[in-house]
Amino acid sequence: VKKMQNDQHTLAELASLIGAELNGDPKSKIYGLASLNKAEPGQISFLYGSRYQLMASSRYQKYLMTTRASAVVLKPQMAALCPVSTLILDNPGQGYVKLAALFAKRPYIVPGIHSTVVMGMNCQIDSSVSIGANCVIGNHVVIGSNTIIGAGCVIADDTHIGTDVCISPNVTIHHQVQLGDRVIIQSGAVIGSDGFGMIRERDSWKMIPQIGGVTIGNDVEIGANTTIDRGSIEDTIIEHGVKLDNQIQVGHNVYIGANTVIAGCVGIAGSVHIGQNCMIGGATGIADNIEIADNVIFTGMSQVTKSITKPGIYSSGTGIMPHRKWQKNIVRLHSLDDIAKKLQNLEKSDNE
Amino acid sequence: VKKMQNDQHTLAELASLIGAELNGDPKSKIYGLASLNKAEPGQISFLYGSRYQLMASSRYQKYLMTTRASAVVLKPQMAALCPVSTLILDNPGQGYVKLAALFAKRPYIVPGIHSTVVMGMNCQIDSSVSIGANCVIGNHVVIGSNTIIGAGCVIADDTHIGTDVCISPNVTIHHQVQLGDRVIIQSGAVIGSDGFGMIRERDSWKMIPQIGGVTIGNDVEIGANTTIDRGSIEDTIIEHGVKLDNQIQVGHNVYIGANTVIAGCVGIAGSVHIGQNCMIGGATGIADNIEIADNVIFTGMSQVTKSITKPGIYSSGTGIMPHRKWQKNIVRLHSLDDIAKKLQNLEKSDNE
Amino acid sequence: VKKMQNDQHTLAELASLIGAELNGDPKSKIYGLASLNKAEPGQISFLYGSRYQLMASSRYQKYLMTTRASAVVLKPQMAALCPVSTLILDNPGQGYVKLAALFAKRPYIVPGIHSTVVMGMNCQIDSSVSIGANCVIGNHVVIGSNTIIGAGCVIADDTHIGTDVCISPNVTIHHQVQLGDRVIIQSGAVIGSDGFGMIRERDSWKMIPQIGGVTIGNDVEIGANTTIDRGSIEDTIIEHGVKLDNQIQVGHNVYIGANTVIAGCVGIAGSVHIGQNCMIGGATGIADNIEIADNVIFTGMSQVTKSITKPGIYSSGTGIMPHRKWQKNIVRLHSLDDIAKKLQNLEKSDNE
Repeated sequence: VKKMQNDQHTLAELASLIGAELNGDPKSKIYGLASLNKAEPGQISFLYGSRYQLMASSRYQKYLMTTRASAVVLKPQMAALCPVSTLILDNPGQGYVKLAALFAKRPYIVPGIHSTVVMGMNCQIDSSVSIGANCVIGNHVVIGSNTIIGAGCVIADDTHIGTDVCISPNVTIHHQVQLGDRVIIQSGAVIGSDGFGMIRERDSWKMIPQIGGVTIGNDVEIGANTTIDRGSIEDTIIEHGVKLDNQIQVGHNVYIGANTVIAGCVGIAGSVHIGQNCMIGGATGIADNIEIADNVIFTGMSQVTKSITKPGIYSSGTGIMPHRKWQKNIVRLHSLDDIAKKLQNLEKSDNE
Repeated sequence: VKKMQNDQHTLAELASLIGAELNGDPKSKIYGLASLNKAEPGQISFLYGSRYQLMASSRYQKYLMTTRASAVVLKPQMAALCPVSTLILDNPGQGYVKLAALFAKRPYIVPGIHSTVVMGMNCQIDSSVSIGANCVIGNHVVIGSNTIIGAGCVIADDTHIGTDVCISPNVTIHHQVQLGDRVIIQSGAVIGSDGFGMIRERDSWKMIPQIGGVTIGNDVEIGANTTIDRGSIEDTIIEHGVKLDNQIQVGHNVYIGANTVIAGCVGIAGSVHIGQNCMIGGATGIADNIEIADNVIFTGMSQVTKSITKPGIYSSGTGIMPHRKWQKNIVRLHSLDDIAKKLQNLEKSDNE
Repeated sequence: VKKMQNDQHTLAELASLIGAELNGDPKSKIYGLASLNKAEPGQISFLYGSRYQLMASSRYQKYLMTTRASAVVLKPQMAALCPVSTLILDNPGQGYVKLAALFAKRPYIVPGIHSTVVMGMNCQIDSSVSIGANCVIGNHVVIGSNTIIGAGCVIADDTHIGTDVCISPNVTIHHQVQLGDRVIIQSGAVIGSDGFGMIRERDSWKMIPQIGGVTIGNDVEIGANTTIDRGSIEDTIIEHGVKLDNQIQVGHNVYIGANTVIAGCVGIAGSVHIGQNCMIGGATGIADNIEIADNVIFTGMSQVTKSITKPGIYSSGTGIMPHRKWQKNIVRLHSLDDIAKKLQNLEKSDNE
């Protein structure tokens, strides 16, 4: 398998791009980016670390001494340990992001509207927009400049999409959805599906027509196969800067505050209100009508059955145990109330 | 952003539509529907509440006195508190459903079979059916009257779809699936994928061909990105009136009884049998081959590892705790069996 | 509803196909396969059982005496109990797999590349490949012999797909993905979506460009609506023989060892390393950067928050309880640390 050859750049160009101090041959040619332990001559690598960054220095520092990379982006205090050229930066993570953008092999974007696109009536599509093959665009759709829509997407009536938005293939956006600027939507995501609202009628359930829309702010990321239901009356709202991982379910009339980050497989029931700058660990479940304050962190698989009014870190779950030990402990958990009562009786008799 | 203007209706028309007693100007014009606290003049609002209905009166009653709506649908006993016109109904929720259907801004449905549809051989498609752009229909497919199929759907060979069915864009329905009447399927759903059956062969696993189909009754709702596997031999069966939310996984040969409601992100392993009129909370997991009686309720994130033979409410999980408190309690849980034994010893010595 | 009529086979042909000893009329005609309790004359049935096989004999043995099947595949020791013709085999499960493949009613595969396919530049597509309607294939895509791609799939630039691969409709495969031979991908799956990596910039988050790919070995199964993120720098890797059920999330730079089996709804965060021959129960969550040894089994809904270094069975969760009992026990769990301390005090005073 022959990989695509990237353009080459000199170390001087790369140092200038990321604003780093270069120690090494400025004319040295670099064709790619790799981890310290995988890099080969001609590639640049990096060392940085702090929580929620790509790679923690604790795991990779050991590879610094033996790296085969031609150069490494790192902090000033690590430079002396590096056997090859260095690009020194107080924040190597930010430098990495710029290098990754430079070396990313993005798929070839076909400019313009592909001949197979089925276009509705009275749309306003900026001339710089790219719409991939077999997309189906509804009526009265507005799409801003430089937005890219991958193949096979369906975008329904009255939807408005901002500028510099990137929508991957096979995404479904229903009618009356508003997307801000620089939104990224991964494949298989569904925005504006009907919420799960129903009323009881005699011995069966009747679905309630969902007449709200979805409003999504700027700089929002929506992961693959994530679903966001439309509002039942008013809109479901995702504020600026929210990042949603893959396979998240967002119920009708949910509100997610600015810059909140939600990891994969989280389920958020209807009418939940989540504050700003929260971090929600993977596979967390949040029951309907709950309110979460700003700056709340849930660790993975949290079971959020009541509102959280104070910032802080919250957790649920039993952790992981060897199966036999788990069986014994959980049998006891099923009579923990009795255990606690017996203890109280003992304490009482002890005090008498 | 200019919203679509809905048709206007008089209060008299609306009262007649929902069978309500009108107190107010019958000629007053209404163009839309909104919550009590969001409604503007020209809109109608509502107040009702009971569990599993759209909005609980406890949360919205406070907005009644100051609503800007032109009229409110509510119960007789609330009418005296309402400062604007009233539409009085014993069951305001049912009235709301009819109004929501009236004011819903549905996407424009293209009648007939779009010119881009790829149609198989020997299909029986009623002349009233609408099939959206870029759908691919297999051979021997039967589709009943007034059914609507959104853009980009794939419907494979020998599948039968009833009347008044509504399938959203980008749905996949595999071969030999039977859908009843008035079924609703949201985008991204997959019906009839191969079940996860395998046998061990020496040091690896071999998938077992899945030769059953899927049978889905009338009035079933299937949420966005929900997956329903075909049966391994006989069919996977979803009975009449079952409502499935988004991102639910239904394994092969599962049986779900009539009018059971299942919230988002639930995982149901193979050959599970679920009774009628159950309510299964979000993100619940049900292990394979388990049987659930009629009228069972699981709260959210239940871990169903054994059959449930009696109606009632069942729960799992630890609830949510501040992280530090959780750490301390869970460390103790991991030795709860020891704790219980120590208590027994103390009780014994106490009784001696 | 008239079902497709399968070809008929004689018992002699079937016995020969699966290598069984036949007791019965070799000319007897068989048109289908069904369970012991559902089979009708003209159908063949089977009885076998062990864990992780299709049907456990414990559940179906009771139907053997009264089966209406024309013949049954079973073990030598069960033959005497069977009232009809027998096909005797030491491993009836393997025989079943071959019969199921024979009687499976697969959808009609259109040979060649459908006229509606949008094909990129410089692709190498073997002449035996079938590509369904409305697929969109990128540039420099390589597809090996006998591979079948269902309708509506999008396969992006520089992706290489092996031989005898089967991709169901509406699958999305992003750029720079490598698929081995005999891989099966169910509908709605997304391979190579961007991973969820970001860095903090002042008061918001910035996504990190994801420049790695995805490498998938031979004989891998990927379930419906499962998502596999591309690597951030190096590839996400799924080794030979891995079986992934529906709605699984695999984060960036995850490594899954050969022949590991993962049930539905599992979430695997970034940079997790899973060994060979593991079995991961449904809806398990695995936190980022965790390492799992070979031959580890997690039961369903495990909460894997630390690395597992030894083979064995591990579990999490509280099991299921009647709701009232659960409430009482969980209230106590929330003060279990206090309970344990009080017990320690009692023990101390008891010993004094």
